[in-house]
Amino acid sequence: MGYVEAGGYDRDMNYIDDRVVEHPEGGREWPVEAGRYRLVGSRACPWAHRAIITRRLVGLDVGPDAGPGGTGPAPLSQGLCGPTHDWKSWTFDLDVDSVDPVLGVVRLRDCYLHRYADYPKGITVPALVEVNSKAVVTNDFRSMVTDLATQWAPLHRSGAPDLYPAELREEIDAMVDLNFRTVNNGVYRCGFAGDQASYEDAFAVLFARLDELEEHLATRRYLVGEHVTLADVYLFVTLVRFDHVYHGHFKCNRNRIAEMPNLWGYLRDLFQTPGIGDTVNLDHIKQHYYRVHADINPTGVVAVGPDPAAFYTPHDRERLGGTPFWNAAGNAEAPAAPRPEDIRDGDEAGAFA
Amino acid sequence: MGYVEAGGYDRDMNYIDDRVVEHPEGGREWPVEAGRYRLVGSRACPWAHRAIITRRLVGLDVGPDAGPGGTGPAPLSQGLCGPTHDWKSWTFDLDVDSVDPVLGVVRLRDCYLHRYADYPKGITVPALVEVNSKAVVTNDFRSMVTDLATQWAPLHRSGAPDLYPAELREEIDAMVDLNFRTVNNGVYRCGFAGDQASYEDAFAVLFARLDELEEHLATRRYLVGEHVTLADVYLFVTLVRFDHVYHGHFKCNRNRIAEMPNLWGYLRDLFQTPGIGDTVNLDHIKQHYYRVHADINPTGVVAVGPDPAAFYTPHDRERLGGTPFWNAAGNAEAPAAPRPEDIRDGDEAGAFA
Repeated sequence: MGYVEAGGYDRDMNYIDDRVVEHPEGGREWPVEAGRYRLVGSRACPWAHRAIITRRLVGLDVGPDAGPGGTGPAPLSQGLCGPTHDWKSWTFDLDVDSVDPVLGVVRLRDCYLHRYADYPKGITVPALVEVNSKAVVTNDFRSMVTDLATQWAPLHRSGAPDLYPAELREEIDAMVDLNFRTVNNGVYRCGFAGDQASYEDAFAVLFARLDELEEHLATRRYLVGEHVTLADVYLFVTLVRFDHVYHGHFKCNRNRIAEMPNLWGYLRDLFQTPGIGDTVNLDHIKQHYYRVHADINPTGVVAVGPDPAAFYTPHDRERLGGTPFWNAAGNAEAPAAPRPEDIRDGDEAGAFA
Repeated sequence: MGYVEAGGYDRDMNYIDDRVVEHPEGGREWPVEAGRYRLVGSRACPWAHRAIITRRLVGLDVGPDAGPGGTGPAPLSQGLCGPTHDWKSWTFDLDVDSVDPVLGVVRLRDCYLHRYADYPKGITVPALVEVNSKAVVTNDFRSMVTDLATQWAPLHRSGAPDLYPAELREEIDAMVDLNFRTVNNGVYRCGFAGDQASYEDAFAVLFARLDELEEHLATRRYLVGEHVTLADVYLFVTLVRFDHVYHGHFKCNRNRIAEMPNLWGYLRDLFQTPGIGDTVNLDHIKQHYYRVHADINPTGVVAVGPDPAAFYTPHDRERLGGTPFWNAAGNAEAPAAPRPEDIRDGDEAGAFA
């Protein structure tokens, strides 16, 4: 998703920005429809991880009628690519014969070419793919995740939380935008900096923001309001990778998250929340960064890292009040365990079973 | 001093192994003599750091008659190379016109060639150089440092500690040998491993030994006996680099030393001991590793790292008994501040002044 350049690192922000919405008004809007699309992600990629968690929390893996542990077809099924990829594409190397069982393709790239035969840009996850045409509908991780949490509401499970409550959207958006620039993308700006000055600038911005968040979380259990919102989902995917990858591989080494008591408690609280920690695969995360970025880690050796058992230690964040799940109907509850077809070797889901 | 190889990393242990001793018996033994030799080191290199600390502690920078703050000629003067070097040599780029003021050379390599015109091996620090001939006498960091602590006794300052007491030598040697294989060289075995299996083997050995040392230091202030010995000097040079370089750059990231309470207290205790912390230059250390090892850090960007102010925080190790300095005469005392000609920009010595 990025390479070492002279000077600062700029993320390519051009995406296939179609949307899937409840009431499409033509143009590049597609209708929400059970079974029509497949979410293709990777456990490794933080941008895909946002979509994977959101799908789990709102229950697009089970739908409104399945109930806990339901076995009917998922309203939105999920394909998972392996942690490493070559310059061409993410691939379905975790699947039998390396073929996605629903889309029937080996490379995610094929789905981009089904959409645009001359697709000239990078092949990224997450991607929402129309199953019949095998064509990518959108790979815009920003609108895609917001739409999963809102537009797809008719297909959410019963008891699904509202991750983007109308009255908090302005506050959530401001939090998300600031964290994106400084933290989510900030770690990449550190790691992919091509010169010392760009790196040190990104490093200062990153840790200044982490210091602010450490203070913010001293008296609040979650970033915005009293419950998990998209703001928490988006910060989590970076925090959970921080000590294992960004601290060393991206040189974000003023300190580990484990050295910031409020952020560390917050991270463990989210990790231990059903639907969040059970989407993590630390092995995939480490394999991806250390092996794909040959330009900053030529040996491809994967750092062993700290003991992930620390994620399961008590966090005592309940003392701050708030509850993980909320919705306007007042019936929000935790998701049941992931469905077997959504689990891969090494997923932390096993530890929650 | 080492490069990424296929498989495990083996340190080249062939050195110019002449010795400088009190009573030479011919062959490749040279006489201890005030003013005859110059120690060439670098603040960056841990093997040179052993010699630099030992020279400071026993007072070969001031000699037996100078007293605290003495200004007479040093019995053993010291040259310091800059933190980075090309494939050919360490250089005196910290000095005026990049020339060592005593040896009159730009590259340490010249001193190796004065000894052997066809010298075929790597140019390493520490090196003991005869001033008149400008020829390297020895670059064997093992015997060199032991000899500075013992054979050079007639030129030690008054009140110099005995860093290698006769009755503890067997215990010190065993401690030093084990720590060398597992820790001092162990971090290099992690960082220069050319494949995953070699790295993971070195990683397991390193942290298993650090766990043993953590337990060992729970009830003892120093590694062997009740006072600072060469065993402590040798472990210190690796520990002081650990969180700033080895943790990320060499992928030694199970945890930082700051996360091991006894080792962390021990490290800070030594750092705050006169003659030890005042030899450290963290900027030189970081510049060296991150810029010289282009094969494992191609961008050459130097990680900012944790705040070095932590080295100055209270350690409370006095509770374990023991005192830093001891000798048989019962007059051991701390060294005075370093002499101005032995201080370079960025040395921690400034913080002790």
